[in-house]
Amino acid sequence: MLTLYYAPNTCALASHIALEDAGASYSLKRVDFGSREQRSSGYLAVNAKGRVPALVTPRGILTETPAILVFIAQSFPEAGLAPLDDAFALAQLQAFNNYLCATVHVAHAHRRRGSRWASEASSFADMERKVPETVGACFALIEAQMLKGPWVMGESYTVADPYLYTIARWLESDGIDPRRFARVHEHMARMAGRESARRALAVHAPS
Amino acid sequence: MLTLYYAPNTCALASHIALEDAGASYSLKRVDFGSREQRSSGYLAVNAKGRVPALVTPRGILTETPAILVFIAQSFPEAGLAPLDDAFALAQLQAFNNYLCATVHVAHAHRRRGSRWASEASSFADMERKVPETVGACFALIEAQMLKGPWVMGESYTVADPYLYTIARWLESDGIDPRRFARVHEHMARMAGRESARRALAVHAPS
Repeated sequence: MLTLYYAPNTCALASHIALEDAGASYSLKRVDFGSREQRSSGYLAVNAKGRVPALVTPRGILTETPAILVFIAQSFPEAGLAPLDDAFALAQLQAFNNYLCATVHVAHAHRRRGSRWASEASSFADMERKVPETVGACFALIEAQMLKGPWVMGESYTVADPYLYTIARWLESDGIDPRRFARVHEHMARMAGRESARRALAVHAPS
Repeated sequence: MLTLYYAPNTCALASHIALEDAGASYSLKRVDFGSREQRSSGYLAVNAKGRVPALVTPRGILTETPAILVFIAQSFPEAGLAPLDDAFALAQLQAFNNYLCATVHVAHAHRRRGSRWASEASSFADMERKVPETVGACFALIEAQMLKGPWVMGESYTVADPYLYTIARWLESDGIDPRRFARVHEHMARMAGRESARRALAVHAPS
């Protein structure tokens, strides 16, 4: 049995969709960012980094989206969520997920989380102003070179797909019209049509 | 045959040491950051992100340190550089590498690379001032909870070790005395004693 700690519409959505894709048996625990529960002693005992997602497994707790996504793919090989028998293809998938995590998500985080890296209100405002440019440049690269289509890695759906979808859903709030990136935009529609995404979104963004 | 694109003392050092650990046959190509070669059309054809490392393989080019490190471990399984047959242990290793990549390296990058995320000189100065605090907090967590010892993952040396070593070598230039973190500091000495690290450092930091 697995337990996913999440907060709605954070990057934890990617792991949530992947658990659905895998047909995993899992439960959810919501972390209330409104009351800063992610900094509570209770949650810091789960994840000392004070972030989501965290995945409780029978062997211990895992953090970091790219690590959790490949773990899900390896734990449910029959779901075919990653090229597990091809080191090069798996590394390509990992490179994509890593770019989302360390570059795209980080660029996005400068809109609201500037206090992680600076102290002055003027710096936060400066960072926030640059987000449409930095996140836009990331998605221009994804659109032109990284998203093979129809899925991230080509013909096969993998755990990179819910991760891209999760971060692409932030485009509008980052001041970027997702229609600027036609292939990414189509990918979003393709993802939204999947039962796994619908089930997860019913929790993250109930209509 | 593998070719590693690198610049001295960047995070490419981790992949370089791992190639040595693996006993891989490889060649090196230096990217001259002084002349901003990483933004040249020639190098952007290798890695459109304009960063190092990039690893040229017979199947294509890989980027992103955590992806390259696991690829090296999977390609040279006899070197025993990752727990390849244990999905949970591999995910723990990946979570560690991911933290280095997306949190620690990113915190460090705000010292000199503030223009990635802001536009004003006052913001860059603000970011730079905060680096000892942010990088220090990362290493306090690594010291207290993440570095199992004697190696990152415990008794077995893995590709997480050269990666931690690579980033820990930036502590002093980030204004942090590495001796504040006794276990990390011992790990650095342990790494510096390995033949693989000595061979790579002879290229990155010739004495």
